[in-house]
Amino acid sequence: MLFLTLRDDPADAEIPSHKLLLRAGYIRRIGSGVYAYLPLMWRVLQKVSQIVREEMNAAGAQECLLPQLQPADLWKESGRWDTYTKAEGIMFSLKDRRDQEQALGPTHEEVITTIARDMIRSYRQLPQLLYQIQTKFRDEIRPRFGLMRGREFIMKDAYSFNVDEESLEKTYQDMHIAYSNILRRSGLAFRDVQADSGAIGGSASQEFMVLAEAGEDEVLYTKDGQYAANVEKAVSLPPDAQPSAFTNYEKRETPGTETIEKVCEFLKCSSTQLVKNVLYETIFDNGTSVLVLVSIRGDQEVNDVKLQNELTKLAPKYDAKTVIKLAVPDTEAQAKWASKPLPLGYIAPDVADDYIKSVKNIAPGFLRLVDKTATDLKNFVTGANESGYHVVGANWGEQVKLPEFAVDVRKARPGDRAKHNPEQTLESARGIEVGHIFQLGTKYSIAMGATFTNEQGEEKPLLMGCYGVGVSRLAQAAVEQSYDKDGIIWPVAIAPYHAIITIPNINDAQQVEIAEKLYTQLNQAGVETLLDDRNERAGVKFKDADLIGIPYRIVTGRAIANGKVEVVERKSRKSHEIAIADVVSTLNQWIQSVNSEQRSQ
Amino acid sequence: MLFLTLRDDPADAEIPSHKLLLRAGYIRRIGSGVYAYLPLMWRVLQKVSQIVREEMNAAGAQECLLPQLQPADLWKESGRWDTYTKAEGIMFSLKDRRDQEQALGPTHEEVITTIARDMIRSYRQLPQLLYQIQTKFRDEIRPRFGLMRGREFIMKDAYSFNVDEESLEKTYQDMHIAYSNILRRSGLAFRDVQADSGAIGGSASQEFMVLAEAGEDEVLYTKDGQYAANVEKAVSLPPDAQPSAFTNYEKRETPGTETIEKVCEFLKCSSTQLVKNVLYETIFDNGTSVLVLVSIRGDQEVNDVKLQNELTKLAPKYDAKTVIKLAVPDTEAQAKWASKPLPLGYIAPDVADDYIKSVKNIAPGFLRLVDKTATDLKNFVTGANESGYHVVGANWGEQVKLPEFAVDVRKARPGDRAKHNPEQTLESARGIEVGHIFQLGTKYSIAMGATFTNEQGEEKPLLMGCYGVGVSRLAQAAVEQSYDKDGIIWPVAIAPYHAIITIPNINDAQQVEIAEKLYTQLNQAGVETLLDDRNERAGVKFKDADLIGIPYRIVTGRAIANGKVEVVERKSRKSHEIAIADVVSTLNQWIQSVNSEQRSQ
Repeated sequence: MLFLTLRDDPADAEIPSHKLLLRAGYIRRIGSGVYAYLPLMWRVLQKVSQIVREEMNAAGAQECLLPQLQPADLWKESGRWDTYTKAEGIMFSLKDRRDQEQALGPTHEEVITTIARDMIRSYRQLPQLLYQIQTKFRDEIRPRFGLMRGREFIMKDAYSFNVDEESLEKTYQDMHIAYSNILRRSGLAFRDVQADSGAIGGSASQEFMVLAEAGEDEVLYTKDGQYAANVEKAVSLPPDAQPSAFTNYEKRETPGTETIEKVCEFLKCSSTQLVKNVLYETIFDNGTSVLVLVSIRGDQEVNDVKLQNELTKLAPKYDAKTVIKLAVPDTEAQAKWASKPLPLGYIAPDVADDYIKSVKNIAPGFLRLVDKTATDLKNFVTGANESGYHVVGANWGEQVKLPEFAVDVRKARPGDRAKHNPEQTLESARGIEVGHIFQLGTKYSIAMGATFTNEQGEEKPLLMGCYGVGVSRLAQAAVEQSYDKDGIIWPVAIAPYHAIITIPNINDAQQVEIAEKLYTQLNQAGVETLLDDRNERAGVKFKDADLIGIPYRIVTGRAIANGKVEVVERKSRKSHEIAIADVVSTLNQWIQSVNSEQRSQ
Repeated sequence: MLFLTLRDDPADAEIPSHKLLLRAGYIRRIGSGVYAYLPLMWRVLQKVSQIVREEMNAAGAQECLLPQLQPADLWKESGRWDTYTKAEGIMFSLKDRRDQEQALGPTHEEVITTIARDMIRSYRQLPQLLYQIQTKFRDEIRPRFGLMRGREFIMKDAYSFNVDEESLEKTYQDMHIAYSNILRRSGLAFRDVQADSGAIGGSASQEFMVLAEAGEDEVLYTKDGQYAANVEKAVSLPPDAQPSAFTNYEKRETPGTETIEKVCEFLKCSSTQLVKNVLYETIFDNGTSVLVLVSIRGDQEVNDVKLQNELTKLAPKYDAKTVIKLAVPDTEAQAKWASKPLPLGYIAPDVADDYIKSVKNIAPGFLRLVDKTATDLKNFVTGANESGYHVVGANWGEQVKLPEFAVDVRKARPGDRAKHNPEQTLESARGIEVGHIFQLGTKYSIAMGATFTNEQGEEKPLLMGCYGVGVSRLAQAAVEQSYDKDGIIWPVAIAPYHAIITIPNINDAQQVEIAEKLYTQLNQAGVETLLDDRNERAGVKFKDADLIGIPYRIVTGRAIANGKVEVVERKSRKSHEIAIADVVSTLNQWIQSVNSEQRSQ
């Protein structure tokens, strides 16, 4: 076996799982965000893939393999070419020798929709559910964390085609069950959460999060188990606002109070009584830029993803596309917009009309949004739209015009009360997204003309769903959830091997003989076993076995004098002396029991 | 199942296997040379992959997965970046968001060598043999024949690292055995042949050819089984030259004799007595162009691949790289070379020095080669280097200077005598190359500095081999070798399903009941079975079963009245009536016996 462990943490690895996979010789970096999966890693990936495959097949899905090279024309048909190559730019593209543009597939909605358009003609062929396990590509802005956010990674992606919403909902629920099974069988602690649909589009979507401290995502949930959502999507009831002390409307001089803290201190008021006004620059993918002013309660934060979604909903009105980049502007950034910049820190919700007139760029140019929870405030404090001044005792529709669009763009936070039950408060956890299921609806089938004839003989667009599992990410997430100071602790179901036999002294013929015999017997009985017969000190071999994280270590050491071997469980560190004749049956039984426990959870 | 068969041949398919795979719904074209593998095809590919995997594992190889995105730097280190992106241009490349050049892997010598360089330190870690099954990319000049010459295709590629030639030879032979097993187990008629190493480089190499009329390659072999080679590589003894009738050297006026036929007719001589002189333009990948004059017997042809190899060997002398494009020049093409073009059809082997002086381009500018079999001629006929004139009765070293380089650049032909035994003559067959094994030697390890410390403590370059199987090509080659007018005839071992149950009339409850029961029983017993319960006429279903080529068709028709079903063998069309209770055991036995026969051949 090509096997090499490293003593020291690699310099460029930030999180434990990345360090451990490099140190233990599972992966090797070939380029930025690009890794070779060495033999141990490949076995893990094959095990994860096999679990995925079994659960997908059990749900009636058919495996296929779609091309990685995708003609640009397909992406232009769906309207995503610009979004993926320019605005977000996360798709690699290239020109072939005939100067034709090709995409390197980050996802396959376009390809599968064109196949469905060709092959599905009648409701009698429906539903259809196809999946593939494949390497995908994303030109990440910042590839990091090893396999967590790579530029080349392995995904299982599935696509469903249904006659109607009800049938789509059924397939979606089947996939929900399959995904729960996959994660349970892989031995992972996870949570399924409501999620934002992002650039994929569509309506309902849920994410499957492997819980781990280093997770890039924050999950908010209630302890009653009734609610869990990605923070990007989460909703809540905000804390009650305190009653305002200002009963009269008045403009006050408030020098040096650009931040909420300073205003509150200066005016001796609660931040819940304040309306802050945050300016965003939004770039739609047709090149249009728009300034957006969001008014929100002083103690709350804007959720960028929600804001992006709300703007996307508004965009068609302005003939703009769906993708948005948000940047908190500074005075310099404002200069390209208006001859007279807004007084940051003192902006009013209803920015004076003369400012709007001074905005140089194209219509609509300026949008005013208010977060719904800010609309309830009475006698509030807000900016006077003049540097160094605020107003107090203001009311919507009286001294201050209510912005045209009242929306939910507030970030839910741990400690907020839950909407479904105000007795419950939101708790926070970190998670690694390893699965995502979407109800796409007719977004792609309408754009690409994928229709079928229904029972009544009418031509209808196909209803679609899509369902992804990050196979390579799941494998690393397992490590992130399960390791100790000595190395990886693989769940039995996805460990590269079930057992490792360590020969403490390879010059001891009896140790070697027993080890080799056990090695053959175990492998024949389906207990996948490694044999460490390297000419190294026992200590080095024990360390390596711990590092690579094989669930059971068998040592042909002193105990063989009594016809026994030592078997150490990696996870609990429990040591057992087991009669040599019983090793195969004991291990087989342990492995079976762990696996069937996970299946039946 | 997503299943759709077409009645008519698709317009763009040229060979039977390509037409059949499209018509039977196995593949779907997504772009030029790019196909989706639909569920039936994916099952075939999985079966081929599994056979490959088992044979590779049995030979002690370790499976891994290397990146498809490869940093350009690695290819520059090995010296192949220009060759692959410019001169041959068969590698796709792209720039990422940070403007870094990336290759899309057509092969993985560079990646595996960099891993070996990092991980292999001592002879104690050797030999190593790693493989992967992966989608590869080639920007083919002319993608065609479906999966045969695609731009995206599935390969198994393996790489070995050895301490010395002897160990490499051993691994190479192991791979030879593994490859023979793979093809035999897949149920294919094949031939292993000596092959040219091409751009991969290295010394010994053999190809595995699936024999089929539509094969792109020509194989020359002897009936005694002692010799087989790709025509690009083949050697032979030429037919004896007839004795020359011209005993005196003389220049003759031979008007209008630009072709060999015309000269022979005019001078009433055999083409075996003639030395023809063929001009080539050679472009090395450093941009250098060289004119090459090849003198060869009049009845023989130049083998471009051999010529290319000979020039490559000469190239280092001229500081040029290995890749060459050859074009038979015309007067117009010559104009860029020399002020006075050579008289095509009348060129002499030792082209006058004044011509060479007139060659405008850089040194060496002009090379003269002679094929070895032409050096034996006495009193031969050849061009006089003057339009409309030949010389007769010429001899090397007397009237004609022998070119500096005497090499084998002659194309072997069917009917030639074999070198190993002149009693044997070469026969011709067409083949599809599905496997290729190479002894690379130290080409990559020296270029990239991949060394190890040997037993004597010396630092040595690793010896390498590489071994490829075209998995998707093999699958299509199986069809090309085995079909009839009604459709595909899959070998049992790689058929997508072993059996298909056709219910002639789905309104007959008894037919349906028996079919569904058999369907469950067969699949439970490991006989992979499809159930055709579509509401279609029996004839349509029989036609589809034949087209998709499932080995055994089970029909729950009339015979069920006697407790039997009809089982039809796709290949022989033999029909059997089998008691329903015996169907599972009978089919299991048939399948086992076909598979074990192929294993033990």
